[in-house]
Amino acid sequence: MAFEPFDKVALIGLGLIGSSLSHVMRREKLAKAISGHARSAETRDRAMELGLADTMHEHAADAVRDADLVVLCVPIGVCGQVAQAIAGALKPGAIVTDVGSVKAAVIRDVAPHIPDGVHFIPGHPIAGTEYSGPDSGFASLFEDRWCILTPLNGTDKGAAARLTAFWRACGSDVDVMEPDHHDRVLSITSHLPQLIAFNIVKTAADLEEVTQQEVIKYSAGGFRDFTRLAASDPTMWRDVYLNNRQAVLELLGRFSEDLSALQRAIRWGDGDMLFDTFTRARGIRQRIIEAGQDTAEPDFGRGGQHGETADSARDKD
Amino acid sequence: MAFEPFDKVALIGLGLIGSSLSHVMRREKLAKAISGHARSAETRDRAMELGLADTMHEHAADAVRDADLVVLCVPIGVCGQVAQAIAGALKPGAIVTDVGSVKAAVIRDVAPHIPDGVHFIPGHPIAGTEYSGPDSGFASLFEDRWCILTPLNGTDKGAAARLTAFWRACGSDVDVMEPDHHDRVLSITSHLPQLIAFNIVKTAADLEEVTQQEVIKYSAGGFRDFTRLAASDPTMWRDVYLNNRQAVLELLGRFSEDLSALQRAIRWGDGDMLFDTFTRARGIRQRIIEAGQDTAEPDFGRGGQHGETADSARDKD
Repeated sequence: MAFEPFDKVALIGLGLIGSSLSHVMRREKLAKAISGHARSAETRDRAMELGLADTMHEHAADAVRDADLVVLCVPIGVCGQVAQAIAGALKPGAIVTDVGSVKAAVIRDVAPHIPDGVHFIPGHPIAGTEYSGPDSGFASLFEDRWCILTPLNGTDKGAAARLTAFWRACGSDVDVMEPDHHDRVLSITSHLPQLIAFNIVKTAADLEEVTQQEVIKYSAGGFRDFTRLAASDPTMWRDVYLNNRQAVLELLGRFSEDLSALQRAIRWGDGDMLFDTFTRARGIRQRIIEAGQDTAEPDFGRGGQHGETADSARDKD
Repeated sequence: MAFEPFDKVALIGLGLIGSSLSHVMRREKLAKAISGHARSAETRDRAMELGLADTMHEHAADAVRDADLVVLCVPIGVCGQVAQAIAGALKPGAIVTDVGSVKAAVIRDVAPHIPDGVHFIPGHPIAGTEYSGPDSGFASLFEDRWCILTPLNGTDKGAAARLTAFWRACGSDVDVMEPDHHDRVLSITSHLPQLIAFNIVKTAADLEEVTQQEVIKYSAGGFRDFTRLAASDPTMWRDVYLNNRQAVLELLGRFSEDLSALQRAIRWGDGDMLFDTFTRARGIRQRIIEAGQDTAEPDFGRGGQHGETADSARDKD
């Protein structure tokens, strides 16, 4: 069943997510018009050059006027002030959603500003790359990814169905979750791994006996995967940690305890404990492949397509 | 310049590295004959079925007889006993090398058994996938990867040159390093990241409020990269930690201190500290790409080839 396009969609923020939404909306004809807002004149100009929006606006309120769908694609920390800025300009019956990786804090900051008759339905597409900015978007970013909606009590069913259909038209599967539970799930599947990645890269950078050049040169052995994560947008991630404090701190405690146990096993030469822990972890990987969340392709060293040197991760010379 | 093939190469162990060496030696014609040893009859049979060796032997000593090159492709923890078992059968003038991810411990365990007139030159190809066993090998595993040799004082120059040429013929670049320095470099580029990956997967598996199913379902957000690492061979990794204790423990101390600092910043809402740390980590990623150790392809969510749904990491249905 074809998606009945929105007359006008407003993208507040034209970074990776905003620009990708524009591309997929253009490709799938999900909006008759797209308006956009970005804080910097540079991003606004670039967005127009790339055709990401039909109109770009210096003030978010001007972008949302007459929009049927407003998507906040800005760091979590500014969602509240953006909501305040656009509140008076929102069209009655419009849907307002966001794409933030933390939901309870966004609801806390945004919901109070949303006028009656406007449908605020928080959302989180679990999709991304390590790149950011208006040039980083692409139409297939959301394809075969999950988008989690965390609607508030009493949310209009028609509006929720419409937003669900929109994300499906973008290629995603849609799940519904309680905001607090979402934040706990994401703290382990995303926020903690990301923090660990930032941290290990920092630890490596501070070594005296191993040069940064050596770390970079021999990074194929595992470290490289962490640096890829660590290349993600610092502002976005800072706001995630500041706004999902409780869940992340709770997890960090557990992670550190578990790591101390491994450290102790290494110090005392407890090979059985190490073997058992590693074996258990291995089993989870198998279940992720079975769940279809990744392929079984060997890719430890990237570009590990058998025999395809063109795919090789490092160019000679 | 074509590589003058060895008359006979013995592969002790036919796992990922051993079987990959066989494939590349066959393809590049680096050995006129390949003999092999594996502890289990099952692996020996499978290796013969796959044509990985011309002869497979129950006893390692029988495999190395008349071999010009002997490659120990077994977990670090058994290198010493293998060296002891083969010592009496080694051909004068033969080269013995290994592929272990720790060098000082292998030298400690192996060197005392090597008879005069046999050239022991420890080595470490920095290459791998998360798979293991005789079926996991492929000829291009070593292509464009680094192989680090850590020759002992007084190593025969001709033998070292021959082994270097061999690895180059396998597609690798060769570096020479002091054993202790190798172990410190690898502790940060490989051993610590791997341990962290095992640990975070364990932490996730033990959560009460978030089900393992949820962790697996929403793993695209960073966690998946860790599970890939965590799928690696538990025996191999147990031996790495037991044999590179000092370097790994030293690093774990630093890592934990750094993580505590981030944890404190999250608790107290120190956004500037988080932002600065994340920004610094991001810079290192850029330098890895510049060094050619990875491509700039966006791949955070895997299968992120723009517009190529066939490559999509998750199959619908």
